[in-house]
Amino acid sequence: MDRKQFRDLADPEVARETIASLDLAPESETVPLREARGRVLAGRVDADLDVPGFDRASVDGYALRAADTFGADEADPVAFRLVGEVHAGSEPDVEVGAGECAEISTGAVLPPGADAVVMVERTDPGDADEVLVRTSLAPGDRVMFAGADIAAGERALGPGTVVTAREVGLLSAIGVDEVPVRGVPTVGIVSTGDELVRPGDPLDSDTGQIYDVNSYTTATAVEEAGGEAKLYPHAGDDYDAMESALRTAAEECDLVLSSGSTSASAVDVIYRVVEETGELLLHGVAVKPGKPMLVGELAGSAYIGLPGYPVSALTIFRAFVAPAIRRAAGRPEPETATIEGRMAVRERYSEGRHRYMPAGLVTDGDGETLVYPVDKGSGATTSLVEADGIVSVPPDVEYLDSGESVEVALFSGDVRPPTLFGAGEDDPALSRLLDRVDRPRYLAVGSRQGRRRLRDGVTDVAVTTGDAAPGGVEFGGWTREWGLVVPAGNPAGVEGLPDLVDDDLRFINRTTDSGLRSTFDEAIEGLADERGDERRDLTDAIDGFELAVRAHESPARKVLAGEADAGLGLRATAETLGMGFVPCGTERVTVVADPERVEKPGVRRLRAAIDDGGTVFEELAGYRG
Amino acid sequence: MDRKQFRDLADPEVARETIASLDLAPESETVPLREARGRVLAGRVDADLDVPGFDRASVDGYALRAADTFGADEADPVAFRLVGEVHAGSEPDVEVGAGECAEISTGAVLPPGADAVVMVERTDPGDADEVLVRTSLAPGDRVMFAGADIAAGERALGPGTVVTAREVGLLSAIGVDEVPVRGVPTVGIVSTGDELVRPGDPLDSDTGQIYDVNSYTTATAVEEAGGEAKLYPHAGDDYDAMESALRTAAEECDLVLSSGSTSASAVDVIYRVVEETGELLLHGVAVKPGKPMLVGELAGSAYIGLPGYPVSALTIFRAFVAPAIRRAAGRPEPETATIEGRMAVRERYSEGRHRYMPAGLVTDGDGETLVYPVDKGSGATTSLVEADGIVSVPPDVEYLDSGESVEVALFSGDVRPPTLFGAGEDDPALSRLLDRVDRPRYLAVGSRQGRRRLRDGVTDVAVTTGDAAPGGVEFGGWTREWGLVVPAGNPAGVEGLPDLVDDDLRFINRTTDSGLRSTFDEAIEGLADERGDERRDLTDAIDGFELAVRAHESPARKVLAGEADAGLGLRATAETLGMGFVPCGTERVTVVADPERVEKPGVRRLRAAIDDGGTVFEELAGYRG
Repeated sequence: MDRKQFRDLADPEVARETIASLDLAPESETVPLREARGRVLAGRVDADLDVPGFDRASVDGYALRAADTFGADEADPVAFRLVGEVHAGSEPDVEVGAGECAEISTGAVLPPGADAVVMVERTDPGDADEVLVRTSLAPGDRVMFAGADIAAGERALGPGTVVTAREVGLLSAIGVDEVPVRGVPTVGIVSTGDELVRPGDPLDSDTGQIYDVNSYTTATAVEEAGGEAKLYPHAGDDYDAMESALRTAAEECDLVLSSGSTSASAVDVIYRVVEETGELLLHGVAVKPGKPMLVGELAGSAYIGLPGYPVSALTIFRAFVAPAIRRAAGRPEPETATIEGRMAVRERYSEGRHRYMPAGLVTDGDGETLVYPVDKGSGATTSLVEADGIVSVPPDVEYLDSGESVEVALFSGDVRPPTLFGAGEDDPALSRLLDRVDRPRYLAVGSRQGRRRLRDGVTDVAVTTGDAAPGGVEFGGWTREWGLVVPAGNPAGVEGLPDLVDDDLRFINRTTDSGLRSTFDEAIEGLADERGDERRDLTDAIDGFELAVRAHESPARKVLAGEADAGLGLRATAETLGMGFVPCGTERVTVVADPERVEKPGVRRLRAAIDDGGTVFEELAGYRG
Repeated sequence: MDRKQFRDLADPEVARETIASLDLAPESETVPLREARGRVLAGRVDADLDVPGFDRASVDGYALRAADTFGADEADPVAFRLVGEVHAGSEPDVEVGAGECAEISTGAVLPPGADAVVMVERTDPGDADEVLVRTSLAPGDRVMFAGADIAAGERALGPGTVVTAREVGLLSAIGVDEVPVRGVPTVGIVSTGDELVRPGDPLDSDTGQIYDVNSYTTATAVEEAGGEAKLYPHAGDDYDAMESALRTAAEECDLVLSSGSTSASAVDVIYRVVEETGELLLHGVAVKPGKPMLVGELAGSAYIGLPGYPVSALTIFRAFVAPAIRRAAGRPEPETATIEGRMAVRERYSEGRHRYMPAGLVTDGDGETLVYPVDKGSGATTSLVEADGIVSVPPDVEYLDSGESVEVALFSGDVRPPTLFGAGEDDPALSRLLDRVDRPRYLAVGSRQGRRRLRDGVTDVAVTTGDAAPGGVEFGGWTREWGLVVPAGNPAGVEGLPDLVDDDLRFINRTTDSGLRSTFDEAIEGLADERGDERRDLTDAIDGFELAVRAHESPARKVLAGEADAGLGLRATAETLGMGFVPCGTERVTVVADPERVEKPGVRRLRAAIDDGGTVFEELAGYRG
């Protein structure tokens, strides 16, 4: 096979058509009605009997001959002789003659001779066996005739109908207890790559192992699209194992998906198996993310190779694969849930490829929707949950301007903007407080970034140490004790910051975005002043001053792993991890809101959570609300 | 217990609050990640490790020291000595010194000594073991640092998050293979009423038996709301069986639902069990449909009694019970899918109760949404599928005017107006042609009603015999052979219409809405003319002339059941049911469209199906396209 033919990336539309040409549809099957929910009817279902199956009373009352009520009204009731009674679920043992009536309950069979029913509310008891009827009736009044709901031979439901509660109702009514449904396409998922480990199994980071994100994610997305996912044992980069997994999956499934191993060897195996058993139809699509997509036939089954990065894999799956699975399952395309919004920031882009830009949503103070790009770069899995949908950007668009109106295709119809969108300091108390807010979104990007995003009008709140975010309304805060986290028992006998400078300690710092880092820098500055030294002399003397990590527990965890002797951190972290702590001070964490968004429900909820946050602050060592 | 306290119907809001006061929430549980789709997180999930777990190359290229690239550009590349290679999933066995580089693949561990990666595209092979770098780098370029995606101790997902593919992705990335989720509320469904038979079991219509619609429908609706449905064996109206079913269900479930048996005895048992083991909190709600709702506590479980009619039961379930199940399951209320439309017709209503009016949707020629009431009266199950949603009408509204704007709460976000809405003749060829249209809706109400609804601007097409619907555009049709359907072999030797008049034959007619009936009436008229008789003399002589049934197969089926000797019907029906047929003529069936809706996709699709309908007409005896 000549790979060069695929050097030109395919147009997204061509990719869609190529995938549409694959046959993934399994055979139809018959399932019990009780298990038919969400399935799609494979054929028309006609009624096989009349519903109701008999002329039925629609109310509680008396069955009689309508002609006998002629002239009856409130002032001048007509007396009927009561000759019996009929209950629902029993055969009438009475016949109604002229001037006679039979008591009848809702749903009961109309007795022979009767042609109408009078509601009990329009009657009065008369003498002895008499009933007084105070209204005139026409034949058929308060009677549902046999077959009036649906009659034998009538069309009940057509092919392609998705079975929900109401279809189950109609099918129950016509006595159907099993239905012909479209088969569920089986999708085999083959995971490749030596570096991948299934979640739950132990991970060796030293050798570059990472958890396999795409297998479970793709399996879940397959199920969401109406397919059945089948996971095959992880094949690593072993030629034979991978080939065997691909062939088995192709035999057992309607569609085989793999997600790109980064190793050239995996691609080679896929090429070879496709070459030997099928045909490669397409290699590479002009979209971002997702360029390296493969489409082909594999041992009689359809095959699609997804990109390796999780966001790319899921984006390509949603754009190209899910529609094919839905089509094979006979499921209608979901109403495309889209939302209009204005870009919160300017986003530049120019690579000449169609871009599926992951985007987050936030509502401003007026309830208007703002849209911001979520692009955390190659392989970030957190952007999976930080984005709400996709903005489709054609190849010739060079930038989206701030304020420009864009359309976001939501990941599902259930997606809504978060009630609270915040960014700033990574803080364990805040994490607990957010548990009390319904659907919050918080980006722990540090105080500096938190201030910037609030200023840009993207976020509702910023959580910062030090200077409050300019232009924000402060509505709460707390203090936290910071210092050096050391191994349990403080084996090196660290007493404070001077030891970092003077002793031979391996230190782990936080990145400069962090508010805690700023507090630490100020303390070092103070120490320098005290000693009459240059700040630079002190920082140079600290082994690891430049070794900065992003999150609040990270330095402590490196100490725990034996990679350092002391880490910048919080007393709460030391306590949580069962480590030693050398206190250096307390700092205030402040929550400020965009003044125009203080009334957003999520913002108010966070404020209430802080005001009422007693137990949160009590449970965390070194905290004060 | 004094039932009188419940004589006043409760306000719907009070009913909602009463139900909200019941505790249906089960305990939380832990499920494997692979089974967590659609579940709701019971607690926060923090990352337990750094993702990535190591400093990782983001591209294929060379790991090196950024400082060594100072000044490199396209014109003036800097040469590095290649000292080894690192692949994804393996531990680096090389250290990068000054002026050195190591080949690295995407996702591989950055080797010790290196602090940046240059993309292979920005390099050239140099002499021997040399690599020429054509760009300057900063430390960290093309490197994703350990924990940059998410770091140990960081908040990953909050409580209340619904697990979809993207959450599965993030949880996989942090190696979580089981998650704490909210329990699924178990809902026991007790069916009462002697007349009810489970679908699939044989039905005795003579005794007024009907299929149990509410059990499977409610079970499906429970599942749609996120509960687990448990069906209890049908208890009939037997006191002990019903009491035992209710008590068992209460013990095993978080909520027990029954749907109203029409018999007073069933209500009595429910009252008694509630009285002995719990408390009745509410009886009767001022809504239509659905007045007879019960709310209470039963042997420590919550209890709600639904009305008996399927449409009422499902409407009440959706309005009152589903929100309680979702709350117990921790599921967010779905975005209320609503659609604005204009009333297609005037609808009067005045009963002083809040009305949930089932409504159907249709788009007019301009794509505007029209709304029409679907009210087929007590107990019709077909209205379950003929309505698309509910218009909520406050008690003080006396009518909705034609053209008035109303809001329809759709049964689900997936509901869309049908692509084709037709009404008219019940015809087996049409039924097959509709199979070729995506999401059609057709009401087999007969030619007369079909004409009327087209004239009212409700439907897109009418299917009629005889005179075409006035104002419509005819776009197709076919002929069908009609006559008398008789038992196989025609034992009575029926030869034609005169035999109905002259012989002692029991006949079954069609209702006057039917076009076939009009054709039959004309033939009788002709026969009377021929004989010089009055039409009335002939019809009086036909035994069963007034015995009219609604659907096209119904007369034949009555003959088949031995209830008559001849029925008005089609040759196609006789053939389908294996019966005898006495031809009387052919009639033309015409499809006409609203001139403003001929371009609707469904209308065009039906037209194409008729034009291309060869096999449909060939397969049906007596048809010609």
